[in-house]
Amino acid sequence: MGYENLRHIFRPSSVAVVGASKKVEKMGYQCLKNLIEGGYEGKIYPVNPKESEILGLKCYPDVKSIPGSVDLALIVVPAKVVKDVVKRCVEKGVKGVAIISSGFSEIGNRELEEEIVKIAKEGGMPLIGPNIVGVCDTYANCNASFCQSLPYKGNIAFISQSGALAIALVGWTWIDSVGLSALASIGNMADVSFPELIEYFTEEDKNTNCICMYIEGIKKGREFMKACKNAYMRKPVVALKAGVSKRGSVATMSHTGSLAGSAEVIKAAFRQCGILEVENLQQLFDASLALSLQPPMMGENIVIITNGGGAGVCATDAAERYGIPLKDIDETLREELKKCMPEFGSPKNPVDLTGMANKEWYKSAIKTALMHKNVDGVAVLYCHTAITEPMDVANAIYDAIKESKVKKPVIVNFVGGKECTEALTWLKKNGIPSYPDPERAMYAMGTLRRYGRLLERDVEEFSSYEDVDKRRVKEIIENAGRQRLTEHEAKEIFKAYKIPVPDESVVKSEEDAVKTARELGYPVVMKVSSPDILHKSDAGCVRVNVKNDEEVRRFYKEILENAKEYSRNAEIEGILIQKMVPYGREVIIGMTRDPQFDATIMFGLGGIFVEILKDVTFRIAPVTLREALDMVKEIKGYEILKGARGEKRKDINAVAETISRISQLAIDFPEISEIDANPIFVYEKGIVAADALITLK
Amino acid sequence: MGYENLRHIFRPSSVAVVGASKKVEKMGYQCLKNLIEGGYEGKIYPVNPKESEILGLKCYPDVKSIPGSVDLALIVVPAKVVKDVVKRCVEKGVKGVAIISSGFSEIGNRELEEEIVKIAKEGGMPLIGPNIVGVCDTYANCNASFCQSLPYKGNIAFISQSGALAIALVGWTWIDSVGLSALASIGNMADVSFPELIEYFTEEDKNTNCICMYIEGIKKGREFMKACKNAYMRKPVVALKAGVSKRGSVATMSHTGSLAGSAEVIKAAFRQCGILEVENLQQLFDASLALSLQPPMMGENIVIITNGGGAGVCATDAAERYGIPLKDIDETLREELKKCMPEFGSPKNPVDLTGMANKEWYKSAIKTALMHKNVDGVAVLYCHTAITEPMDVANAIYDAIKESKVKKPVIVNFVGGKECTEALTWLKKNGIPSYPDPERAMYAMGTLRRYGRLLERDVEEFSSYEDVDKRRVKEIIENAGRQRLTEHEAKEIFKAYKIPVPDESVVKSEEDAVKTARELGYPVVMKVSSPDILHKSDAGCVRVNVKNDEEVRRFYKEILENAKEYSRNAEIEGILIQKMVPYGREVIIGMTRDPQFDATIMFGLGGIFVEILKDVTFRIAPVTLREALDMVKEIKGYEILKGARGEKRKDINAVAETISRISQLAIDFPEISEIDANPIFVYEKGIVAADALITLK
Repeated sequence: MGYENLRHIFRPSSVAVVGASKKVEKMGYQCLKNLIEGGYEGKIYPVNPKESEILGLKCYPDVKSIPGSVDLALIVVPAKVVKDVVKRCVEKGVKGVAIISSGFSEIGNRELEEEIVKIAKEGGMPLIGPNIVGVCDTYANCNASFCQSLPYKGNIAFISQSGALAIALVGWTWIDSVGLSALASIGNMADVSFPELIEYFTEEDKNTNCICMYIEGIKKGREFMKACKNAYMRKPVVALKAGVSKRGSVATMSHTGSLAGSAEVIKAAFRQCGILEVENLQQLFDASLALSLQPPMMGENIVIITNGGGAGVCATDAAERYGIPLKDIDETLREELKKCMPEFGSPKNPVDLTGMANKEWYKSAIKTALMHKNVDGVAVLYCHTAITEPMDVANAIYDAIKESKVKKPVIVNFVGGKECTEALTWLKKNGIPSYPDPERAMYAMGTLRRYGRLLERDVEEFSSYEDVDKRRVKEIIENAGRQRLTEHEAKEIFKAYKIPVPDESVVKSEEDAVKTARELGYPVVMKVSSPDILHKSDAGCVRVNVKNDEEVRRFYKEILENAKEYSRNAEIEGILIQKMVPYGREVIIGMTRDPQFDATIMFGLGGIFVEILKDVTFRIAPVTLREALDMVKEIKGYEILKGARGEKRKDINAVAETISRISQLAIDFPEISEIDANPIFVYEKGIVAADALITLK
Repeated sequence: MGYENLRHIFRPSSVAVVGASKKVEKMGYQCLKNLIEGGYEGKIYPVNPKESEILGLKCYPDVKSIPGSVDLALIVVPAKVVKDVVKRCVEKGVKGVAIISSGFSEIGNRELEEEIVKIAKEGGMPLIGPNIVGVCDTYANCNASFCQSLPYKGNIAFISQSGALAIALVGWTWIDSVGLSALASIGNMADVSFPELIEYFTEEDKNTNCICMYIEGIKKGREFMKACKNAYMRKPVVALKAGVSKRGSVATMSHTGSLAGSAEVIKAAFRQCGILEVENLQQLFDASLALSLQPPMMGENIVIITNGGGAGVCATDAAERYGIPLKDIDETLREELKKCMPEFGSPKNPVDLTGMANKEWYKSAIKTALMHKNVDGVAVLYCHTAITEPMDVANAIYDAIKESKVKKPVIVNFVGGKECTEALTWLKKNGIPSYPDPERAMYAMGTLRRYGRLLERDVEEFSSYEDVDKRRVKEIIENAGRQRLTEHEAKEIFKAYKIPVPDESVVKSEEDAVKTARELGYPVVMKVSSPDILHKSDAGCVRVNVKNDEEVRRFYKEILENAKEYSRNAEIEGILIQKMVPYGREVIIGMTRDPQFDATIMFGLGGIFVEILKDVTFRIAPVTLREALDMVKEIKGYEILKGARGEKRKDINAVAETISRISQLAIDFPEISEIDANPIFVYEKGIVAADALITLK
């Protein structure tokens, strides 16, 4: 389904409201009324066989009886009638349908929903919904929804998976002057879902500068990521994932019936595909507003200009919290700034113009800072005083930006009462994101910096390792004929993917054991080789530091005896004899398959780091070398790998390469359901995967 | 200075405005005007020798020429005149002064400030300021400040260390309907400071339900803590400590000249004295509003009632973030709630009345939940829909609470536009804390729970250990005659305080070394005993696991040689021979003296926990056994002490007792400036302090 067709849904030339009604309490009345009152200028066709006219418009008994062509059919009829309506829409050649009606998969009625989607798809007609509040486009004045008004106009496209929240947030856009270009409620996502909408708003909708999403659960995780990756370089993408808490994720499932992946996996996916994640509704709108109005912050130097020390301190604390700690200001700039303040002002960062600050000082200080080469963004704070009026400061800010002629982000915070609120509204109307709390302003600036960092990072596609031996892996998997591979089989697969493992072999007799041990060289490790004995140590089936022939013979017997005692029916392949590798710093790499995002890679340090501190990180496979390095660097245990406490630096590149290779293995072999390399020993040079577990589907 | 006198400042019978002016741009004009326009009903006396009448009031040349008595003198004259004015105030018998004038210690003019305070103190006259915006009492209609209006009326007493912020926040109280009983700007805190104000608002001001503070730096930390400890059991105390970031703390210092203790120490002090800390201005007011209007939440069972699944999920996530995760609802309650919703509603927590929810359902659901014995608090969420009007829901909430007749907290969130804002304002006016964002509502509820937990905890005074030998400690300190004690001296002090140390002695000859080693029993540890060699290992002056007489002799020589080589002039007391104690889990206990809070205790696990994870926690001494246990439990490494990964549980009580005893040592001996017990070995039973460092002032 191409996203191009979606313009018929958001910016239709004509809309049929199927299920329009004269009864005020009916949704079919509300929707028609909203469309008319929103000032929509295209043709509106109410459809209802029982009426001849509604709200002054001629009413049609059927979509097909409408004389002209129909771009969008807004469907508000009971669930059981929807299928028939959609069929007629296809026959009529309607270009897109939005189904407000509920009573489908959200209450278990999945079959009916699938039938309807099939009809629409065969008719080449995109379908949004069902179970939505509708769609709005503030530039087309098209309120095809039961939101009582269009959202406040602006440049944010808002996609909401919750209908009730979408309606309520339209009210919020008005009181907080958060401008939307479009609103899409996507309900059950039976056909059109996040990927198509993200693509549409990126490629087609020139009024959209920022894509903003309220997400409860994601279907088609890979397509979602692809759409975001394509979008974010051109338009920032912001998302709130609701249901991240234990209890919240349960509530989400019962709410939309969507199977949410684990919060960690979704967070990893967001990071990888360039989504700016936020934590709550206020941050969602605060961040989107800033991103829709201002350029990203391309550098780390932010300057805060304030007339109140207290607000300056609060903003400074917040800046550090949001990843943009203040730096010292250049001496040259300090000298210039001194001219914009009284004697007792401070040209240090935060720059304090003092309570005496008037509009001229504000204007010259802002302009001076913006035009200085070592400044990447400016936050302007103002505490309401009797000295200067809020609107004067607002004008000073506007003029300073205009006259500076540079493209650097400016964020504003005014603390005060009604006059401040008015000035903030004016500023937002004039393209300057403004907030009543220094914390929120700095959060917004932090987001502009996060976006800047995203744009700075190199876009790197995963390039497969060519030196891997896929045929060998295939062979091992086929020969195994079991769901769980033995340690040795798993290690053979690693070897085929050029992941270092200890020299080892499986033997079936005492004599071979001794021979192999001698070949490998003492000391060796001996373990039972059995797909049925998972916890070999617990079963008494592991012996380390085996030093000579005699020990090999003794342990050979012991291990077999213990294995039989542990599990009478275990299939025992033999004894695995391993060259004993030196002990190194332990790390763990794991792979599982998420229902929405498929192969997901986990990385962490072994021991207390993973067991007690849960110090692990995730990515969706494949993981490029650069991303793998990020993984290593973002865990707390990185300090250890870097060489803390007198230890030498470990081979971090080798760890990253191993992560990347294991991620490729997961992509190349969808039949592998789980990989667990634990522990991997990391040395000053190189790594060795000391143990490995692979499970097939 | 008794806090009782402060009522003359906040609720005076008469106010003299010294420095009143006819010139509109002067503060002396503003302040007089504000007082009149605020509706103050006591007597107002403008004082200015150059005028006979200002703003319709008879003007006096001098405080002393005022015919009646004067409760409060509000001083707005230039700094250089203030001293004289204060002198005259004392002579007149003025009951309290508030000095708005600036130009004192904040610009280095400390001497003048001290002189003025001395005069006021000798006159028994409390002095607030200088360098403030003034004080307000909304019940006395007394706006003795240059805030252009009184704050919105309510039950929060707000103490602000930032003047500009205080004025601006008065505007905020109006737009957000955050009701204040009083506002105190405290500026340089030359005389009246946090402790007196906290006491006054706790003991004297019946209109105050909650004390709320914006703090940049604290003087007299111990008095501050004492005042808060006395306050919080009766009235909740909320504080925002600004300047907690690295850069922010620098900004704070240059702003108020206050020497801020480290953020960690202040946080510890807050926790210990019952302060509810918040992170930003919005939280400061959101938390205070809830605490001023609602009872604390006494139990862990919160129920969320919503008409929108999305808002419910957001609130559920937030609840977990703020320490009040949702629990399952009782089956009995679920059955009752089912009667308050349509068939497709959900009686699970969050309770979803669905978009069809009307006011009756809201009312009965809230009432039902509130009256159920297993519910400790209710959060009501509402997304604006066409089905029910916000004001109807607001009324339903109000009625439900009234009819339920229980004292359990209720918090409200409405998401929507103007009508919602109006309903929220009405709710706040009627005693129900209400917020436009589910996140903020749950934060407020989380604060009510935090306060509930504070009230639940036993109040426990520190009771000194009687079995300690203070005389012995005194003797060691006096005999040392040095700033840095040797390890052995430090351990002798520990011993006197019943903190276990290894058996050890200092010897001065090879023969004695052998004799002592035999007595202690092999193996032993040998270290140089010198106050001048701090890093003994680095100096090659430590030998562990010394096994026999011969080794003792050899190492005796070696250590002395190495010591001399390391530092030619080091004073060498002899060789310390220690019984080698078994290795246990390492912890660290430290003591330093904070400039504001004095003796501060640090606790953490040794090794990577302290070095890489900075996993440490602080308390102000003395530390009770219960607090010490809290310290142990709040570090991440607690899992290890509890016995993770197959290890047995360590003797946590012994660790707590050691913390408590070291804290007493710090209190008993102010001449000790630093204690460092690192490492302390913790066993399944008992501990041993393997090394100790004590420094004197």
